[in-house]
Amino acid sequence: MYLIGITGASGSGKTTLAYRLLEHFGDRATLISLDSYYKDFPDLPFEKRAALNFDAPDIHDHALLESDLRLLAEGKPAPRRVYDFVTHRRKEDDGMIEPRPIVILEGIHVFARPEVREMCDLRVFTELDPDISVLRRVKRDMEERGRDLDGITLQYLRTVKPMYERYIRNYKEWADIVVPTLVHSGVGAEMIALYVEQQLAKEKEG
Amino acid sequence: MYLIGITGASGSGKTTLAYRLLEHFGDRATLISLDSYYKDFPDLPFEKRAALNFDAPDIHDHALLESDLRLLAEGKPAPRRVYDFVTHRRKEDDGMIEPRPIVILEGIHVFARPEVREMCDLRVFTELDPDISVLRRVKRDMEERGRDLDGITLQYLRTVKPMYERYIRNYKEWADIVVPTLVHSGVGAEMIALYVEQQLAKEKEG
Repeated sequence: MYLIGITGASGSGKTTLAYRLLEHFGDRATLISLDSYYKDFPDLPFEKRAALNFDAPDIHDHALLESDLRLLAEGKPAPRRVYDFVTHRRKEDDGMIEPRPIVILEGIHVFARPEVREMCDLRVFTELDPDISVLRRVKRDMEERGRDLDGITLQYLRTVKPMYERYIRNYKEWADIVVPTLVHSGVGAEMIALYVEQQLAKEKEG
Repeated sequence: MYLIGITGASGSGKTTLAYRLLEHFGDRATLISLDSYYKDFPDLPFEKRAALNFDAPDIHDHALLESDLRLLAEGKPAPRRVYDFVTHRRKEDDGMIEPRPIVILEGIHVFARPEVREMCDLRVFTELDPDISVLRRVKRDMEERGRDLDGITLQYLRTVKPMYERYIRNYKEWADIVVPTLVHSGVGAEMIALYVEQQLAKEKEG
């Protein structure tokens, strides 16, 4: 298994890049989003669940992610995790992820757990001006997650921005390559695809 | 001619990246450094020449660079420009640059002139923490350019840092890809080389 880890600020283009790579690799690749690994708090009432810091590294179950990745690395299927952003709950079992030669892992804290970070064969950081990122985030949260602008703004000021400044921007330190997503030239995705193809070809030869 | 433009802060690894690419492409490539295009001021006394702002975009003869690049793009040789950092003078003619399929252009302001920026088929930005960059710069200026630490520090505070903040860091806006040079994984150079090979192969097919 060749593992590509993609991180960067919320709204910086991680998912867009991941989908471009998926498009390139077709059914040789599968995508895992860290968003599916939010911890579940079944005993908390909705208001308390909604008030959790969803931007801190410890809100995700990184150990569960690691064990799922290890299953895939061994060529075994792993459970598909699904999180509901409206109810703030992990959904019931949604089938299995089949092992594939390439796994694309994207999310704000995918480099937070050293074991996962070191499993990544390639580490990518997506970068976009914060004002453009926040506009993209507002659009996504309103359209896909049923949030209103005041709620989005409050969360942005309380957790999204502070957690970006404390943690996420520092993950760039681990990046092999930084993809600037303002230009949208597509060059970054193409370079990564070519590089991964070459690495896979090398592995086959070796 | 396929033109690769590389910019980034002083000491951020532009030359190292350029040499890695040269190593990959061998005699299909040639390297041009913007440092060779400092304007000449033969009538200024040494003290005044040494006190110029060598970090501002208008200290380079970008029009001369453009015309040399156009010669190479037309398959003609261009004069090799050489600048002496000890005397702060352009040296006499040092031969010609032969046209080659790949030209690597590196320097702090290679994207300053729109005509040159647009001639670049690929735009790269090298990125390194400023403290590590300045340590590299100090070493280079002491060892290769015969400067002392006080002079280097004075220039850094007066011109290097302000010009980086006013101009150079903004050139990232034009970059197709950002190469973080702290990790030294070599992945960035390899990705760029693979991508350029593919672009050249496409051109040949087309």
